Amino acid sequence: MIDRVVRVLDTFSDTRTVQSASDIGRRAGLPSATAHRLVDDLVAAGLLERDDEHHIRLGMRLWELALRGSRALRLRQAALPHMEAVQARIREHTQLAVLENDEALFLERLSHPDAGANITRVAGRLALHASSSGLVLLAHAPDEVRERVLGNPLPAVSPETVTDAGALRTLLAEVRTRGFVVAPGSVETVSTGVAVPVRDRGEVVAALSVILPRHAPAESAVAILRAAARAIETDLARDGHERWTGGKLPSH
Amino acid sequence: MIDRVVRVLDTFSDTRTVQSASDIGRRAGLPSATAHRLVDDLVAAGLLERDDEHHIRLGMRLWELALRGSRALRLRQAALPHMEAVQARIREHTQLAVLENDEALFLERLSHPDAGANITRVAGRLALHASSSGLVLLAHAPDEVRERVLGNPLPAVSPETVTDAGALRTLLAEVRTRGFVVAPGSVETVSTGVAVPVRDRGEVVAALSVILPRHAPAESAVAILRAAARAIETDLARDGHERWTGGKLPSH
Repeated sequence: MIDRVVRVLDTFSDTRTVQSASDIGRRAGLPSATAHRLVDDLVAAGLLERDDEHHIRLGMRLWELALRGSRALRLRQAALPHMEAVQARIREHTQLAVLENDEALFLERLSHPDAGANITRVAGRLALHASSSGLVLLAHAPDEVRERVLGNPLPAVSPETVTDAGALRTLLAEVRTRGFVVAPGSVETVSTGVAVPVRDRGEVVAALSVILPRHAPAESAVAILRAAARAIETDLARDGHERWTGGKLPSH
Repeated sequence: MIDRVVRVLDTFSDTRTVQSASDIGRRAGLPSATAHRLVDDLVAAGLLERDDEHHIRLGMRLWELALRGSRALRLRQAALPHMEAVQARIREHTQLAVLENDEALFLERLSHPDAGANITRVAGRLALHASSSGLVLLAHAPDEVRERVLGNPLPAVSPETVTDAGALRTLLAEVRTRGFVVAPGSVETVSTGVAVPVRDRGEVVAALSVILPRHAPAESAVAILRAAARAIETDLARDGHERWTGGKLPSH
């Protein structure tokens, strides 16, 4: 049943925000009567919304329930002021991503009006081995995740994506040693991704990145990103401390 | 069943992000065995996550499904650059809210480091009759929503909240005529909320607001907010047009 709910929600995307119940059923692989009944139940609960013309959208109530107590919101709220500071200096796309089911999931993207090409979207995904954010997340992922990803096919996202597991293994070790990655052309030929890790209580929980024009120098971007990552880490630690001391200890 | 899922998700909040399955069950009013089974199923689907110590959190997969195709994300993405411009000029809390189930639901909040008191949270709610955002949303709500809200008890959030239905009716008519609201002390005695409507295809879809110190003059804030609302509306219209002409027409 929960699997069916996920299949229904999964039919919506950034380019498909409005659908009929019949289309949802077809795309979710559900029998029509089942789909209509499930959509009715989800509308009644506010997780979906139906307009006067029977178009179905994701519900604001779903958005609220998914965000209110989420790690995604906490990370993003700690990161946003520092991402704005990065963007004010670098004036390109500034992004925050987390590891989710062997891919990089983007929690936030700030886009300067003058910024260049960028295929990422908020709540969109990219392959770990191709994007600069993904490389940072993969470098610091649990061993079993890294081995699984490197053991599976590594498709080229652009002609320059590193797709050789051995070369990637060397690159990931460098990322861990240096504390950043510069990935020219690995997602789009015209761009260079630059990413650094963000830690919470010692563990890498996110990657902070900027997308530069292909041949822009990366040194100052690395320094700006590292300073911003430290600032985010300070705010995450303070936030954690406030939760700990503010009588809001998780009960278990 | 969907009702139970909502009750489980609803036990999480901005101050309760980690819980045991037993606590979730108790707070959701579910029998322990039912709660544990449902939590297991939600973890298997990625909608919840369980860490090594059996603490349960909201899942990144839930966040992704709720956001990716949502009206909330579309509105927020159109608004964010213009909210940043507002914040750069006013240097106070800048917020975006929508009408959700007879309350103001906050989609975004940017907080300047120097900004004053503010009780709103992203994915948090405030009463329509008390907050400046809520007054704008209530002024432009469907008649039946306005009549329902004005016909129900109107609790005071602060000593200065307008709680008389007749006075509110007059105030809401003024909001519609003037195109903005200035609400001193209605949520917190130390603050004045200033809000304007944001329209999409002619309909008010959100309220854009700033929270000023109580006795700060509101005129320039009103002008800045109105200009930002127009800019958001232009971007929403362009976004809608691109969807319409880009082969991404909703099928129905």
